[in-house]
Amino acid sequence: MARIAVVAGDGIGPEVVAQARKVLDAVLPGVQATEYDLGAARWHRTGEVLPDSVLAELAGHDAILLGAVGDPTVPPGVLERGLLLKLRFAFDQYVNLRPSRLWPGVAGPLGNVKPGEVDLVVVREGTEGLYAGAGGSLHRDTPAEVATEESLNTRHGVERVIRDAFARAGRRERRKVTLVHKTNVLTHAGSLWARAFDAVAAEHPDIATEYQHVDAAAMFLVTQPQRYDVVVTDNLFGDILTDIAAAVTGGIGLAASGCINPEGAYPSMFEPVHGSAPDIAGQGIADPVAAVLSAALLLEQLGHAEAAARVNAAVAAELAGRTPGVALRTAEVGDRLAAHAVA
Amino acid sequence: MARIAVVAGDGIGPEVVAQARKVLDAVLPGVQATEYDLGAARWHRTGEVLPDSVLAELAGHDAILLGAVGDPTVPPGVLERGLLLKLRFAFDQYVNLRPSRLWPGVAGPLGNVKPGEVDLVVVREGTEGLYAGAGGSLHRDTPAEVATEESLNTRHGVERVIRDAFARAGRRERRKVTLVHKTNVLTHAGSLWARAFDAVAAEHPDIATEYQHVDAAAMFLVTQPQRYDVVVTDNLFGDILTDIAAAVTGGIGLAASGCINPEGAYPSMFEPVHGSAPDIAGQGIADPVAAVLSAALLLEQLGHAEAAARVNAAVAAELAGRTPGVALRTAEVGDRLAAHAVA
Ligand SMILES: CC(C)[C@H](C(=O)O)[C@@H](O)C(=O)O
Ligand SMILES: CC(C)[C@H](C(=O)O)[C@@H](O)C(=O)O
Repeated sequence: MARIAVVAGDGIGPEVVAQARKVLDAVLPGVQATEYDLGAARWHRTGEVLPDSVLAELAGHDAILLGAVGDPTVPPGVLERGLLLKLRFAFDQYVNLRPSRLWPGVAGPLGNVKPGEVDLVVVREGTEGLYAGAGGSLHRDTPAEVATEESLNTRHGVERVIRDAFARAGRRERRKVTLVHKTNVLTHAGSLWARAFDAVAAEHPDIATEYQHVDAAAMFLVTQPQRYDVVVTDNLFGDILTDIAAAVTGGIGLAASGCINPEGAYPSMFEPVHGSAPDIAGQGIADPVAAVLSAALLLEQLGHAEAAARVNAAVAAELAGRTPGVALRTAEVGDRLAAHAVA
Repeated sequence: MARIAVVAGDGIGPEVVAQARKVLDAVLPGVQATEYDLGAARWHRTGEVLPDSVLAELAGHDAILLGAVGDPTVPPGVLERGLLLKLRFAFDQYVNLRPSRLWPGVAGPLGNVKPGEVDLVVVREGTEGLYAGAGGSLHRDTPAEVATEESLNTRHGVERVIRDAFARAGRRERRKVTLVHKTNVLTHAGSLWARAFDAVAAEHPDIATEYQHVDAAAMFLVTQPQRYDVVVTDNLFGDILTDIAAAVTGGIGLAASGCINPEGAYPSMFEPVHGSAPDIAGQGIADPVAAVLSAALLLEQLGHAEAAARVNAAVAAELAGRTPGVALRTAEVGDRLAAHAVA
């Protein structure tokens, strides 16, 4: 029986996670869920971000389902470094998986892109690069201040995420991987990424490959998102590109993500890309689709591909049936999705 | 009399620069232009990228007009680091200026954005950050390889570009500056940028300010580009965001840029954002508008605001008069723009 840790979090987190659990319970009866109280609320109350004891308990689960953490009153970095990134690094979640589809029924912002035409997945490296936390400053608060941030990249870390991207491409229809970096400026890291990419590509002659600089990729995601299948890239580039991909496919309200340790040595974590949205929290009007799609990624990762497919089909039906401009009720969407997923 | 160094470069560079010169000559008779042969062609022929003697000669000019350099046969980094970035750093061009307007007559990719609604300028830092060239690798080509790239940020460098952004905002209608960074992850550099921004903002109570994380800004540039006036950001973020801004305003074929040393201690450099486009080079079909708009930025920087305004008006008329789908001839566009700018 799957053992899931649930971190509902702050703002709309609890509202959307409740729907994801409804759907999970519907398609996989008997899921054991344990709730963990983490996020801005706990930090305000206790000063704690992620106690070691909680980290150890989380490690005993098959997966983590997270809603959203944070609110504007928490200083930048506290929950990001102390909780989200801490989990990604502690649980070696090196595959940060972010699919983007322009679902039929969803009006994207691009005039020349039709629903169904965009179906890409960004495989973002999750444990290296500028997220390593290697930086510092000298002479702080003086005119002589200097601050550094260092991007750390290892062959080990780069190659394993590229391998994952090729494996995913091999299971998809178009079988194409695009490497995105900035090899013309970041020559050291760029060269490492490019050489590792070429080495893995050579083992997969059946998979098409291309390379793009990150600025060009940012542009093409807007002008021609249809061209992408699997995109593999570094941690920071992936952060930026996946928000563009979300924007062109209807917004982060629909974007799901998984922080995955493919070997299963540690639990993987699944969360909507959107934040805690304090402005609409508590009103029951947040769209739970991103949380539900994240639950589908969770199911897939735990080997329940058929259940995941049913959740995706329920989301497809839900989105196709929406009338633009009509307000939604979070719980009703959850009910519909759960009902459709078991029908 | 203005003394301009012209680096026409490779591919479509010479074709579009010829039109920019036509327009410059028309609005500012007597410009003295000296051509410098730099770029992929010279590198292939002589192995030289930017000889010291040429750098010294360029320093003696009031400004540099560059077409495009590079072609796919030059290894990544050679011309970027050796020529383009070398000039930006040697001439302390710390303001990398990139305006984006959705010109009437131009069909952008966004369904819900009307021509005339987008008019923003990104003030990208040009001499620091990840572009400093501070990186290296160990154990290259072994499984133990590690590669680093370091972002270097100084209070000096950050504050001066923020000051420039506020000065520009003060001369614009909406008077708003958006700082873009990633303070929640890049906490050291992010904090330096945020503190410098707040200090300069305090001196400009009449200018509205906001902060956005780079991933959010990338998204909002797609969903709501109208919201931006002046955006100030670091070197790499600016590289990515300006390509998104170009994409949503009709493509890099229309995007101009200036690498500016505001004090005039060194020449500033002006170039279209597009590359050398070897696939269409030599056919006389490249759009020279980005090069001509870059010449307008040059005029503005050299104090010829009225001439710059006439060039911009000529571009506005040209774009408003285009029929979608009708192929253009580079030289004819240049002729029309030059004629209109003096009319
Ligand atoms: C909250 C932040 C640390 C995080 C990131 O930068 O990875 C977020 O933007 C994301 O994309 O998951
Ligand atoms: C060619 C490259 C070095 C350059 C950059 O990264 O700055 C280009 O992308 C630009 O935006 O001017």
